[in-house]
Amino acid sequence: MSFSYGERFRVTLFGQSHAPSVGVVIDGLPAGIPFDMDAALAFMARRAPGGALATARQEADVPEILSGLVNGHTCGAPIAAVIRNTDARSGDYAGFLDTPRPSHADYAAFLKHGAFHDVRGGGYFSARLTAPLCFAGAIAIQALAARGIALGAHLYSVAQVQDTPFDPVTVSSIDFARVRAHALPVNDETILPAIQQVIEDARATQDSVGGIVECAATNLPGGLGDPPFDGVENRLCRVLFAIPALRGVEFGAGFAAAAMRGSAHNDPFLYENGVVKTHTNHHGGALGGLTSGMPLLFRAAFKPTPSIGMEQDTVNLATGENVRLSIMGRHDPCVALRAVPCVEAAAAVALLDMML
Amino acid sequence: MSFSYGERFRVTLFGQSHAPSVGVVIDGLPAGIPFDMDAALAFMARRAPGGALATARQEADVPEILSGLVNGHTCGAPIAAVIRNTDARSGDYAGFLDTPRPSHADYAAFLKHGAFHDVRGGGYFSARLTAPLCFAGAIAIQALAARGIALGAHLYSVAQVQDTPFDPVTVSSIDFARVRAHALPVNDETILPAIQQVIEDARATQDSVGGIVECAATNLPGGLGDPPFDGVENRLCRVLFAIPALRGVEFGAGFAAAAMRGSAHNDPFLYENGVVKTHTNHHGGALGGLTSGMPLLFRAAFKPTPSIGMEQDTVNLATGENVRLSIMGRHDPCVALRAVPCVEAAAAVALLDMML
Amino acid sequence: MSFSYGERFRVTLFGQSHAPSVGVVIDGLPAGIPFDMDAALAFMARRAPGGALATARQEADVPEILSGLVNGHTCGAPIAAVIRNTDARSGDYAGFLDTPRPSHADYAAFLKHGAFHDVRGGGYFSARLTAPLCFAGAIAIQALAARGIALGAHLYSVAQVQDTPFDPVTVSSIDFARVRAHALPVNDETILPAIQQVIEDARATQDSVGGIVECAATNLPGGLGDPPFDGVENRLCRVLFAIPALRGVEFGAGFAAAAMRGSAHNDPFLYENGVVKTHTNHHGGALGGLTSGMPLLFRAAFKPTPSIGMEQDTVNLATGENVRLSIMGRHDPCVALRAVPCVEAAAAVALLDMML
Amino acid sequence: MSFSYGERFRVTLFGQSHAPSVGVVIDGLPAGIPFDMDAALAFMARRAPGGALATARQEADVPEILSGLVNGHTCGAPIAAVIRNTDARSGDYAGFLDTPRPSHADYAAFLKHGAFHDVRGGGYFSARLTAPLCFAGAIAIQALAARGIALGAHLYSVAQVQDTPFDPVTVSSIDFARVRAHALPVNDETILPAIQQVIEDARATQDSVGGIVECAATNLPGGLGDPPFDGVENRLCRVLFAIPALRGVEFGAGFAAAAMRGSAHNDPFLYENGVVKTHTNHHGGALGGLTSGMPLLFRAAFKPTPSIGMEQDTVNLATGENVRLSIMGRHDPCVALRAVPCVEAAAAVALLDMML
Repeated sequence: MSFSYGERFRVTLFGQSHAPSVGVVIDGLPAGIPFDMDAALAFMARRAPGGALATARQEADVPEILSGLVNGHTCGAPIAAVIRNTDARSGDYAGFLDTPRPSHADYAAFLKHGAFHDVRGGGYFSARLTAPLCFAGAIAIQALAARGIALGAHLYSVAQVQDTPFDPVTVSSIDFARVRAHALPVNDETILPAIQQVIEDARATQDSVGGIVECAATNLPGGLGDPPFDGVENRLCRVLFAIPALRGVEFGAGFAAAAMRGSAHNDPFLYENGVVKTHTNHHGGALGGLTSGMPLLFRAAFKPTPSIGMEQDTVNLATGENVRLSIMGRHDPCVALRAVPCVEAAAAVALLDMML
Repeated sequence: MSFSYGERFRVTLFGQSHAPSVGVVIDGLPAGIPFDMDAALAFMARRAPGGALATARQEADVPEILSGLVNGHTCGAPIAAVIRNTDARSGDYAGFLDTPRPSHADYAAFLKHGAFHDVRGGGYFSARLTAPLCFAGAIAIQALAARGIALGAHLYSVAQVQDTPFDPVTVSSIDFARVRAHALPVNDETILPAIQQVIEDARATQDSVGGIVECAATNLPGGLGDPPFDGVENRLCRVLFAIPALRGVEFGAGFAAAAMRGSAHNDPFLYENGVVKTHTNHHGGALGGLTSGMPLLFRAAFKPTPSIGMEQDTVNLATGENVRLSIMGRHDPCVALRAVPCVEAAAAVALLDMML
Repeated sequence: MSFSYGERFRVTLFGQSHAPSVGVVIDGLPAGIPFDMDAALAFMARRAPGGALATARQEADVPEILSGLVNGHTCGAPIAAVIRNTDARSGDYAGFLDTPRPSHADYAAFLKHGAFHDVRGGGYFSARLTAPLCFAGAIAIQALAARGIALGAHLYSVAQVQDTPFDPVTVSSIDFARVRAHALPVNDETILPAIQQVIEDARATQDSVGGIVECAATNLPGGLGDPPFDGVENRLCRVLFAIPALRGVEFGAGFAAAAMRGSAHNDPFLYENGVVKTHTNHHGGALGGLTSGMPLLFRAAFKPTPSIGMEQDTVNLATGENVRLSIMGRHDPCVALRAVPCVEAAAAVALLDMML
Repeated sequence: MSFSYGERFRVTLFGQSHAPSVGVVIDGLPAGIPFDMDAALAFMARRAPGGALATARQEADVPEILSGLVNGHTCGAPIAAVIRNTDARSGDYAGFLDTPRPSHADYAAFLKHGAFHDVRGGGYFSARLTAPLCFAGAIAIQALAARGIALGAHLYSVAQVQDTPFDPVTVSSIDFARVRAHALPVNDETILPAIQQVIEDARATQDSVGGIVECAATNLPGGLGDPPFDGVENRLCRVLFAIPALRGVEFGAGFAAAAMRGSAHNDPFLYENGVVKTHTNHHGGALGGLTSGMPLLFRAAFKPTPSIGMEQDTVNLATGENVRLSIMGRHDPCVALRAVPCVEAAAAVALLDMML
């Protein structure tokens, strides 16, 4: 069941980087839900390749709807959508089955699938599969918005450059809109030059950089989640780790909480205009695996793009020799950048599945 | 399906802190697997309450086997085991339904379940449910050991006190045995006094401290995992977040990877005695959602115990007033301490499910 | 996942005929649902052994509640219940691993589990596991009744003796009550002597007889079901075939429909007091995998009890010889008789899972 | 999860009769399995419309492969395939949302989905979705054949015309090949004229007829299946009931078993050339939810096509009046005919899922 997620809002991905298509089947939406294709395309454009700081691969990424939508509304049947792979250049990847790229899936995929693994463009391990994930996310985001729920993410950090975090208590759709209005998805516009610089420096030296994406969702009802195994955190992690290059997820104060005392970390309750709130939000909107009604807040750490132009050590599985490898191809110097909408999409998919 | 995990090794938990029992049903083991009850009890004793640094609650935690084992071997039927709750003192918890404890599940559970939530001892949100999880883990650990796989965890940090991390490349069962021989599960015995001190200080001030647990598994075959949604990381997270107080999980270099360049973070492959290895192990044994054959390595961050003796702010849901609360009861000043075997158990359950 | 059923009302069975216990974990009921233990015991008594026409095995079959119920109400945690096996006589079964009983699961279980299969009393293939299924069914029946839904089954036939079928259009809880008031669960009291006679005759000749159980559910809302793979019929079959000795299931006109013309089989719609009904109910309340609002009606065919006293041919797997076998033990001459409440329980479990 | 089936061989269907496409995503096949597209097309042609006795709808039904196959072999990624709907005439169906066709899904779908249900051509309830099911079945059949397993089905009966049943003990791929060589899938060629006549008569009178499909699978290993809830019968039923118009399934002697005595129904074991067999096969190759090693044998009863030209009673949901309805359109007078390969496909999907 590796390509399917969800119990009520069920997302099934398919495709490889250099197959005819990537795509998605989305099952579980009730009939009669309006779907705004323009909004979906605008959302998907945020992860699409292109731009000075991303890969040069150019693809329109316009999903073709095969089923499930009639006159702009769901009809109760699964929504199937395909996105054609139109700019795949398989020649770039010849040989990676024999000489696996360091810190890529190539070698592990060879162990799992043998010589029949489709290594071109990384096969199904490619970030290309985040395109249909984002389409599913776009649908989920619209369904969540209809329930008053907003979510947004930003580049919490790139390499050592830190963005201003969301305020865990007051974060709102105003913040999300501001982030989206910037040239890159940052919370504090003044750090844009520094982020652009650190990414440019990496690219110029045929290197790459990692980054952290912070995401918040607001106006969620309290009590959502099915602990112990399907609590909010379990479910979010299960979808988030479908995004390539993710190495860690933390909620609320996260790893910093481990260095705190209870008296400092605990979030006391209080009535505010008749509504139960917490003074602080170290818990990140999730207590005991359930939403608390406070903003849901988590961070996702992405490793630096493993595809770098610099020469590296690797092995030749055919000859059994240690060899040197230079990866040409077209690569994002910072996957965290394009991961921002992917994190939003993954969160939306997990949250909607909990709400239906 | 919140109380069940797994596709092939399927674990279903049940119970509340103050119900007659907690327990577990384990489905999916083939017939004929020997089961060593003494080893299981020794493993479970590592999480059992008691000891100077833990809660004063005293329970034998000896599981009674109801089915699935005949003459010390599995028979193909599910293994059901119950652990009686013999030292529950419900009086300690009266009132938490009305005055939810800060950073506990009480309030979120009230939103989900209403007044019928069993708040006594935290109900099913209690760490008491890690007892049957550890029993399932003990079974999984034995089944993994039969396949040559070892795993172990230690206290990577408590508050600001840092233990020596496992070496990501050379970590082995020798390290795991050393950790288990210490009075507390630390890698470097010399930090024991510092850890004991910081926990004692927290207890003495009616406060608590957080901590990080690091876990490794060795000798795993490469190519295990079913990305995108059931990769190694997705599956581990789904089980790990069943452990109360967990706030984050990271694999390999984890959040630190986000501050690195690709040239530093990438783990070059090399042949070592004819076997493919990596020089370094920033990837933590998982690439593209699959095991790589290198040691699997992750860290889990636990918040400080939310139950503290110091007076705190909260609300009275019955009267609609802001009130003050002192939590008496019997509590661990550092949940990370007893979480060490729970992390091992969770990892074992997830790994065995992938291997069957 | 073989011992678990359901997405929202999730039933996990465990136990073997001669293990310490059989039992069940029931996950998914919201908190605050009242539970009537006396009604559950009365329901379970209908399948309990004993009586002139059933096995002589005597067990009280009183489930002990381990979790999930507080003060007679659900609390949102799984309900776990165990039923002790108090009258198991393992000596009766020695040897069936080597000399499998014809038309029993012994041989197939040996192929699956090998010599470690718990053959005593049939192990987990025993009808004994219908005791916890009936407990789950009792809970489901109460939850359905709270939604106005009633269900009931009767002995449609035993050997060649035919009971009067339920009227597919007018069947109601009045019929169900009448059936339950009889000494055996028949619709037409006048056939009781004939049924008793045919069962007695089988017993007297150390033989057994098969039978068909007909079941109806009334007042179901229309539109329930999730075709194509989780429609009403798919789901009912998946639970029903957990009852031993079941060989077929048909809905509405069932196999007879295959001999009909569309003009005779189609059920025309009409308004009756402003409500859409059908003149006839050949469709058995299910159209396209969805409930139609008419009574749900199906029949389940049970083979004759395979355990018969007459000497039979079989093999000795240890010696590789053809041998003769006489089965002593204590057996029901007609499993269909005790299957009546099991069919009701299975149907209730499937229907409630669709409704939650 | 209604459009997905399977744990290891996972089939996700999508599409509606008049959507741009129907299609399927197939997840779980290991890499390196050869795929014979010509054989798949030949299999699919057996259910395709056309021919004197079927609907006049004409569609090539050639699946386009979107992913998962590279150079004629699986690569470990899901296989996605779409089949375009090229001959849909929506005008034929206008109005069925208001005036539901008797014994069709229209009314129940309206109750579930409301006015947004895609009623054109029956929407996702259409037998059109058996085209992608048959493509999945074609893949499964090839994978089963590689394991030495053959399966085949025939028209056991149409209306009152009976075909010669498969011999439950000796049925083999020779029988399957003979059936496929006939103009219609019958076991006994001499009944062809009678079957053609009864279908022609139905068509000529604007009526329809039902029929029974019998299916066998040979050379299955014993011990397959995961009772109680995922035994052979449970799993087969869950897939089979995805085929429209199915009203009942029986295994081995089936409903007839209910009228038998145990001494007649039991299948004694014997050694035959060192292999354990049964003299007879009333159990249809399944004991206790597990395969026994004898041929698997079951029958599936299909109702007469509900779409008939004769005028019928129905309701107008818009006006609240009882009305008369004549269905024009293009319809099969006997759905059982085209259901034969669908039953094979469903069985292959269920069996392969059990074997992987």
